[in-house]
Formats: sequence, C-alpha cells, structure tokens
Amino acid sequence: MDSPSRVEIKSFFMNLQDNICKSLESLDGKGTFHEDLWERPEGGGGRSRVILGDKIEKGGVNFSAVEGHLPERISNALGLDPTDFFATGVSIVLHPHNPLVPIIHMNVRYFETSVGKYWFGGGIDVTPHYIVDEDAQFFHNYLKSTGDKHDPAYYPHHKKWADDYFYIPHRKETRGIGGIFFDRLEADETHTKQDRFDYVKDVGEAFVPIYTELMNRNNSKSYTDDHKSWQMHRRGRYVEFNLVWDKGTKFGLQTNGRIESILMSMPPMANWTYNHEIKSGSAEELTQSKLIKGIDWAL
Amino acid sequence: MDSPSRVEIKSFFMNLQDNICKSLESLDGKGTFHEDLWERPEGGGGRSRVILGDKIEKGGVNFSAVEGHLPERISNALGLDPTDFFATGVSIVLHPHNPLVPIIHMNVRYFETSVGKYWFGGGIDVTPHYIVDEDAQFFHNYLKSTGDKHDPAYYPHHKKWADDYFYIPHRKETRGIGGIFFDRLEADETHTKQDRFDYVKDVGEAFVPIYTELMNRNNSKSYTDDHKSWQMHRRGRYVEFNLVWDKGTKFGLQTNGRIESILMSMPPMANWTYNHEIKSGSAEELTQSKLIKGIDWAL
Repeated sequence: MDSPSRVEIKSFFMNLQDNICKSLESLDGKGTFHEDLWERPEGGGGRSRVILGDKIEKGGVNFSAVEGHLPERISNALGLDPTDFFATGVSIVLHPHNPLVPIIHMNVRYFETSVGKYWFGGGIDVTPHYIVDEDAQFFHNYLKSTGDKHDPAYYPHHKKWADDYFYIPHRKETRGIGGIFFDRLEADETHTKQDRFDYVKDVGEAFVPIYTELMNRNNSKSYTDDHKSWQMHRRGRYVEFNLVWDKGTKFGLQTNGRIESILMSMPPMANWTYNHEIKSGSAEELTQSKLIKGIDWAL
Repeated sequence: MDSPSRVEIKSFFMNLQDNICKSLESLDGKGTFHEDLWERPEGGGGRSRVILGDKIEKGGVNFSAVEGHLPERISNALGLDPTDFFATGVSIVLHPHNPLVPIIHMNVRYFETSVGKYWFGGGIDVTPHYIVDEDAQFFHNYLKSTGDKHDPAYYPHHKKWADDYFYIPHRKETRGIGGIFFDRLEADETHTKQDRFDYVKDVGEAFVPIYTELMNRNNSKSYTDDHKSWQMHRRGRYVEFNLVWDKGTKFGLQTNGRIESILMSMPPMANWTYNHEIKSGSAEELTQSKLIKGIDWAL
C-alpha cells in the first residue's frame, strides 16, 4: 500500500494525543489527565485520557488503534467485500466551566482494509453556549487557511459537510457554529495518500492553537447564574445530538465498543426544561438565531 | 368495528389524564399542572401537562389523539397495507426530588387503522435510584393482581416483556426494576376487544395507587449529597435509555412529533461522570447488582 504506512499514521496520532494533552494541561493550569489503557478482545486497544480541571470542567482525549475482522453488517454498510480492518484515530471533546467558553470537538481518523481500501476522516467543530461573531470568524478563518494550504476546495466542501452533519433534525437547529467535517478521503487524480495525510495532520495540529485562543479570549469573562443555566440547557442539546444522531456514538454503542471512552463526550451535567423559553432581545435569543446552516463565517 | 369504539377509548384516556393529574397535585401538595394544548397539522392533537412540584421535581402527563395517513415506512414496519390510522394514549414520567423515591413511567395506548386492524399497548415500570426489595415486591404484586383479574398469563408474559424492553444493552443493565409492558393486544379466541380494554383500563388506574404508595413510603426519608449525586448518575442512564433505545422516543423524534411532549420524559438535570466507581459494600452497589433481568419480585 502507498506510503504513509499505518505504522506511521498511528505513530503520528499517538504523538498528537501526547502533545494535545500536554498543551491542555498547561492551558488549564491545574488539572492533569488521568489515563486508562484498554484492550479490545478482538484486537487492538486504546489510551483514554480524561481531565477534570480548573477551566476545563470535563475533557476527554482518546487515542485508539483497533483491528480485526470487519463484521459483515458493517462491511456491507461501507460497500466493501468481507475484509479485515485496521482503524486508528484521536477523538476529543472538552466541556469548559465558563459558559462563555465554547465546547469543542475534534477527531482525526484513518481506516484501512486488507483488500486494499483505505481512507482518512475527521474534523473540528465548536459549540459556543453564546456565539461571539469575532470568535466564530477567527475559528472558521483558521480552518479555511488550514484547508487552503492543501486544496482550496477543502474548506468550502468540508464546512458544508459539517453544517449538514452537526445538525439536530428534531430541534431544527445546528449543534453550534459547525467547522469542518470530512470522511473517506483517499488518493485521487490530484491528491496522493501523503497529500491527504498532510491535511489530516494539519487539522489535528490546528486543535491546540484554536482552543487556546478561544479559551484565552473568553475564560476571564465573569458570568452569572443565568449564563450557567443556559449552558446546562445547551449541554442538553449536545447530549441529544450525540445519543440520537451522531453516527460515531451510535456505531460504538451498538458494536460493543468501550462505553466509557465513547461517552467521554457527555457533559458532566446537563438540564432539560420543558418548553424552555428564551427572552426576547436576549443574548440567548441572538445565539439561538445563529444556530442555522449556511452562515459564511470565514472572511 | 367491535365495541368499545375509538370515541369511548379516547374519552376514557382523557378522563384518566384528568384524574391522574388531580391525584398527583394532591399527592405533591404544592405543585399544579401547567397545560399546553397542541394540534398536529396532519390531524388530531393533544394535551401536555407538566408539574414542577414540591415532591415531584418534574412530571409530565400527556394525552394525545392523532390521526391521518400512515407513512408507508411505518405501515411497512408494522406489516400493514397502506392505511389511515387513529392513535390515542396517555403517557407519564415523573422525576421526584428525593432520590429515595423512584422514577415512574406509565403508558396506555390504542391504535386503529382504516383497514380494520386495531390493538392496545401499554405498561408501567419503575426506576428506583435505590432499590428497596419490599417496594419492588409491593409494585410487582400490585401489577400481578391487576393482571390476574383478567388473565393469569398477563403478568408473567408482560413482566418478561418489560424486562426485555427496559434494558440498556450498552450498559448491560436494566433501566430499573421493570414492571409490565405489552403491545398489539387484539381480540383472539379467549379475549374480546372489550376484555383487552378492561385490562388496559385497570393498568391505567393502577398508576395512582402505586405511585402514591411508593411516594408515601419514601418521601419523608432524609437524604445526603451522596444520594443526590447517585440520583444524577442514574438519571444519566435514564437519558441514555430514552434517547438511544426507547422505540417510542425514537419514533417521535424521527417523525416530527411534538418534541417538547416527547421529551417531557427527560430528567430536569442529569450527570455523566467518566468511569463512575461504586464503593464496595455500598447501597449503590446493592442497587446496581439488582439491575438485571429475571428477578421474580412478585410473591
């Protein structure tokens, strides 16, 4: 198979996890990661790391590399012949204490079969409890320049993909301000496997500077009980997206994955208020009005 | 179609909702129900009632009667020819303040098509944060005698059905101590439609005496922060069951039902702790050990 090899990709992801955890401990200033090593009976395993910090209320940074025979149900769904597979990736969700700091999610992954198919997937998306236009612009501009370094078609394509993916149909709202999402990136006429990997590497490495900036811009702002209450409400929506609609979570829950690693993405606490009403003219109303697809945040 | 008619059944359910709401206000002693009337664009509507009380932290008692053309996807799934349908029912979930009082769920429903098919469904199940054997026995004995009045096969059959239905596969645990669950009860050689309805009526009317007893037995017990914390943890599991596995909730979310009525079942607040550990020898451990199928609570 073309280079880079699975060994090289896995090694990059392990280092990425290490570097991100170090940077997040430094950003948090107090919390440290607790690690659980786990093995998958059918092959492979992972390193789940969780931080309960001072700024990050609950954060999970998970690395895994698993392999084995692909269940037929899944190979069928992926349009593949029966095959062995190898899959590796890093997955992150951070829930901050301060409601004026957004939730962030990042994932980079690689999938390979014994019949010669492989692809990369991943993305970063941000879920502000309160949308700040300048922050959304900063975030999307960062993603745009990350993509543009590799292919000017990446950002517009993967930005739209994120809008469609991080959508809560039963609420008719997006989860947050989106970001980028992509899957099944393989070599084609204009991209080698190495080209794809280089993009994925840059996406993974964009995580720390992005979240550091969003944290530093907002964490020192003071907040009220009303802000906290809205944060708990928005976290409820985060739970609804993850448990009802997120393909990765559903896949994990239905295929006997390591439950605690899959559900590291859940907020530490969430609320559901019947018929939650938003005050006219409030900051909450402004945020709610921007939880829609198709906003061109990048300049 | 045989008697009872849809009009009679609907009327019984509306009265049942009224009576249950009155009794719950009296039981709570302080909270009163807030009602939202809603209409379904395709036909029918409902009365959603919510109480935020002194003993009942959040409770929903929903009545609905909807009709229209059955989407083909659903008629196929039900093994029916294309048809119009009528469906009515009462659905309840109560989340108490005191963690020593259980969560309770009840549903009774009737479904009818324009091609001559109809059936009843329903059930009651209880989710104690702390399982008390005597309470579980009282609850199951009550259900057993309710069933036995109609058919001695009902309780054992519908008890097993509840064990299987209220199960959280990804946690390998039951939601609580089960109860009864049944669906597609129609007339057969030994039961008329009226016989089935009489059973469903008794199930609906069992709700108030059951929950009154469970509340009165436990609500005056004092509780600690540890009890509350465990309650928040168990509520997280309740959310997981409802959003990931409950067929009724999934059906509602995917078919554009009234979201706030469907999600009235969500707890007011829930927690997720990574790798939650249970102390050896604790009351929490004892409860966890009984979250399994097949316990014969009835004497």
